[in-house]
Amino acid sequence: MEKKTDVLVIGGGPAGMVCALTARKYYPEKSIIVMKDVEEGVVPCGIPYMLSALKDPRDNASGSGPLTKKNISVVIDRAIEIDRAGKVALTESGDKYNYDKLVLAVGSSPITPPIPGIDQEGIFLVKKELPYLLKMVEEMKSLRRVLVVGGGFIGIEFADELSHLEDHQVYLVELLPRLLANSFDPEFSALAEDKLREEGVKVMTGIEVTEFLGNGRVEKVRFSNGEELEVDGVIMGIGANPNVDLAATADLVLKGQKGIWVDEYLRTIDPDIFAIGDCATKRDFYTRKGISVMLASTATAEARVAGANLFKLKVIRENKGTIAIYSTYVNGLVLGSAGLTEISAEKEGFEITVGTAEAVDKHPASMPFASPVRVKLIFSRHSGIILGGQVAGGISSGEIINIIGMAIQKRDSLTELETLQMATHPWLTTAPTKYPLVMAALAASGEIIV
Amino acid sequence: MEKKTDVLVIGGGPAGMVCALTARKYYPEKSIIVMKDVEEGVVPCGIPYMLSALKDPRDNASGSGPLTKKNISVVIDRAIEIDRAGKVALTESGDKYNYDKLVLAVGSSPITPPIPGIDQEGIFLVKKELPYLLKMVEEMKSLRRVLVVGGGFIGIEFADELSHLEDHQVYLVELLPRLLANSFDPEFSALAEDKLREEGVKVMTGIEVTEFLGNGRVEKVRFSNGEELEVDGVIMGIGANPNVDLAATADLVLKGQKGIWVDEYLRTIDPDIFAIGDCATKRDFYTRKGISVMLASTATAEARVAGANLFKLKVIRENKGTIAIYSTYVNGLVLGSAGLTEISAEKEGFEITVGTAEAVDKHPASMPFASPVRVKLIFSRHSGIILGGQVAGGISSGEIINIIGMAIQKRDSLTELETLQMATHPWLTTAPTKYPLVMAALAASGEIIV
Repeated sequence: MEKKTDVLVIGGGPAGMVCALTARKYYPEKSIIVMKDVEEGVVPCGIPYMLSALKDPRDNASGSGPLTKKNISVVIDRAIEIDRAGKVALTESGDKYNYDKLVLAVGSSPITPPIPGIDQEGIFLVKKELPYLLKMVEEMKSLRRVLVVGGGFIGIEFADELSHLEDHQVYLVELLPRLLANSFDPEFSALAEDKLREEGVKVMTGIEVTEFLGNGRVEKVRFSNGEELEVDGVIMGIGANPNVDLAATADLVLKGQKGIWVDEYLRTIDPDIFAIGDCATKRDFYTRKGISVMLASTATAEARVAGANLFKLKVIRENKGTIAIYSTYVNGLVLGSAGLTEISAEKEGFEITVGTAEAVDKHPASMPFASPVRVKLIFSRHSGIILGGQVAGGISSGEIINIIGMAIQKRDSLTELETLQMATHPWLTTAPTKYPLVMAALAASGEIIV
Repeated sequence: MEKKTDVLVIGGGPAGMVCALTARKYYPEKSIIVMKDVEEGVVPCGIPYMLSALKDPRDNASGSGPLTKKNISVVIDRAIEIDRAGKVALTESGDKYNYDKLVLAVGSSPITPPIPGIDQEGIFLVKKELPYLLKMVEEMKSLRRVLVVGGGFIGIEFADELSHLEDHQVYLVELLPRLLANSFDPEFSALAEDKLREEGVKVMTGIEVTEFLGNGRVEKVRFSNGEELEVDGVIMGIGANPNVDLAATADLVLKGQKGIWVDEYLRTIDPDIFAIGDCATKRDFYTRKGISVMLASTATAEARVAGANLFKLKVIRENKGTIAIYSTYVNGLVLGSAGLTEISAEKEGFEITVGTAEAVDKHPASMPFASPVRVKLIFSRHSGIILGGQVAGGISSGEIINIIGMAIQKRDSLTELETLQMATHPWLTTAPTKYPLVMAALAASGEIIV
């Protein structure tokens, strides 16, 4: 079968869906097809929460409803080759799709490290496939001793969730000397580790898994320090690689690049082909260097840029480059990070000034449900421009990190933050006299710290 | 007694305290005195919460500890006259304070409308005086039928708190046809009214109190529609006027101005005298017109500008003008407003485009403790610059309004918000595909709404 479409989006994850919906808004007259491998995907950030927080793990499924409602056709098939000259995508089932504009939103695949014994039963990767994950959830609930490999976001979220299951002993192992090391400075990493230990997770850092032992089903794990641990199951959360096989059939992957190369408007080297989300290269907001940020939020921001700009550049992208902006929730503590950490800023060669503040997230401090909140801000010492920030605190910290994110995107300065106008309320925020973003900026501005 | 000081701050509320502390940071060598009427003041925004949310109403007291710790002298006295030529402040107790720089942070006083019978027992104003408020709290707890006059922030917060006291019937009366009419558009006002009715508050709008009846103690209230209501107590929350008597002794109050006139750096017409907070005039961020915004958060932002700039302008104020930025909490619902509403923007003559979005503040929507969240954004139609926003939702909405506030202060555009990079997390925020600030911006950008 041969089909013609104005826009073909390959990939039905958050990037593909949002790109198609944005394109529908900006180009109401165009025909749009979204091609996905499976009818039902999952919300990527919700995967760990299928274990305990969500009563029904199927609540994390993600279907095609939002697309078909907007007159976007959905095709379940797998594209296997792109013919750029002919502007055709060929599929596994033998169909041909002629496109005017093509969007690759094909995501990433979990890394499977070459550890002996990794192919055994009981060892799960974080695949974005609903049936696989439902099986994982069911099995995990029935086990007792589970090891999570990887101390990044996905790893600590799995460890947190597993610890809420009855009668589970959870272990977390991280190769680096501390958790969340790429996104947080050590004092924030320590908070995450404390919170996991508090709920009984055994955290091991600076240690590598060298072998999975068992007879077809994992029974024991051997570590780089020679120790062994008996386990009933393992979750591998050590990261993902961009899916580039399809793009490679059209020579869209440049030498030395891990993802599909794109320009500021998510266009590949072929002006009629865009790539967005995990499969596309990213440039750091500050340094323009290539960075690896695989987040649904980043993917959807890119999808909106691409979706609006498929035929002509309509929406100018003012925030050039990608900001790593994360939040997570561990045993009641919110941790957020945006932009550069103190360590990454130093490593990139920035001369910086740093300010921290601690307060309570309601006022007076004896208001019900008050939590401590801690903010760290990193500024360029001379230009005073904000480079990054981290927050640890109660639920609202999940949006405080987005204030910091906007400050970064708008190149806010230290003195602007010092005199920020903000809303404060006893039930909702720190007191205006101690609002932590303001106090951290004041602290960073040198001289005597108030 | 005659005293000399480099900096004299008159007023010990949030503005005075923060100004003195900021001055201490920027001018470590200067002598600083804060003069206040009473030893113990209160946190202004916490006043309603002395009734129920705070177990001990004294937790809302605000003492001098933070000042004296930073080597700032505190004097309990009342300034009654300023001699600008001599650079001297004279006090009630007969002392003279020679200053180099003077900061007036003398606040505002609750409006007492000339309603017959208003001087009776059982009728309270919202004074920022601890003993007065402690008496009010004690009395209110023992009453049964209480009327709150005024449907602005303070009025609805009092009504909400009173409704949490056992066996209380609470009435709220507002002269205008709806609650929070100066800060919210009607659909948000309606949410506040619904929430109050849900907890049993009888809300009356478009009605005025014409008389308080009683024999020295209020027993009955007569309204403009002829109805009468039996009450045991009344709280008057209809607003405040700037305290200008002291400034008037030095001719610092200009004709036709309600507060003390100040420039962009909070300097009065006398370059050695600053005025900050409720007692100082404010100019609207968009129109530069005089506006009345009396908020501790606004006051502290001004205090930080003034405190840093007492001797030379050190910290440039980039966000010129005042943004009205508010949040409140009514029966579990957070309401926030920043900048212009749709109605106020229209009234000021702006050609606007408006977008709204509704979502759930966690994802998937079945995550525990998820609340609906609703955002409305107002943009200049042609320049695309954000003019204002409103939010209604769960606890995090108290910081979402501060994202909108920063967007306003940084003159963020519609297309920048459409492609905002933000952190999202199942426990903490709406899904990245539906993040309400982004979706409201998309909705405002015309054409077909996604």
